[in-house]
Amino acid sequence: MTLALARFVDFAVKGDEFGWLVALEGERNVPFPIKRAYYIFGTRPGVRRGKHAHRQLTQMMVCIAGRCTVLLDDGKASVEVELARNDRGLMLDRMIWHEMYDFSPDCVLLVLADNRYDEADYIRNYDVFKAACT
Amino acid sequence: MTLALARFVDFAVKGDEFGWLVALEGERNVPFPIKRAYYIFGTRPGVRRGKHAHRQLTQMMVCIAGRCTVLLDDGKASVEVELARNDRGLMLDRMIWHEMYDFSPDCVLLVLADNRYDEADYIRNYDVFKAACT
Repeated sequence: MTLALARFVDFAVKGDEFGWLVALEGERNVPFPIKRAYYIFGTRPGVRRGKHAHRQLTQMMVCIAGRCTVLLDDGKASVEVELARNDRGLMLDRMIWHEMYDFSPDCVLLVLADNRYDEADYIRNYDVFKAACT
Repeated sequence: MTLALARFVDFAVKGDEFGWLVALEGERNVPFPIKRAYYIFGTRPGVRRGKHAHRQLTQMMVCIAGRCTVLLDDGKASVEVELARNDRGLMLDRMIWHEMYDFSPDCVLLVLADNRYDEADYIRNYDVFKAACT
């Protein structure tokens, strides 16, 4: 269960004498079309973000600066994952309750999503989420 | 000419007591479908990156950590732009020679593109670029 919950995708890092580059391509190393990209930053100490699940949205998280911790919960089991590499994406499937915390001050968490923002797709109450999982 | 060369798109910053978030959506505040997202980091001091133009690719650059400078050249005029805000995208149209430099050590430059990588789309020789502009 734990392994199934935390699925990572490793990205190639193209480097040379100039510096580094990581490329994410929709329906290639990102397994869906990239309709939305958002980044979370300036998170205050002690804050937990996320705290919701999506009915349909599929996402991938990449910590491109600093570090943070992500909790994934599929209603049956949960796993805690540290994100501290900018060459590794964490898949965030539909119907996964997720919370992010322990952000370093410099953390920038990039999230790619397979659809645009839709408030109706959010489940923001954990009990409602649990009930929907059964 | 200068104004036309450097076109910016300002993004809404969604903030609350937890921290901040910027969302980029293809064909919304990003004026093309997002087929590729790449990020440049760990650039060494004194390095100039880019130094090419694209025959067809349209891109948008966002400096999501640190700062850097971008030179844009359409074959008739050039302009130098500082990128130091994570809520402002710089449009990079087709047939614009571009170079990036003066990267801060913590700089992460996110670039969104309307197509996947295609080496045939690159013009890597400035004289060839100039000739193609006339």
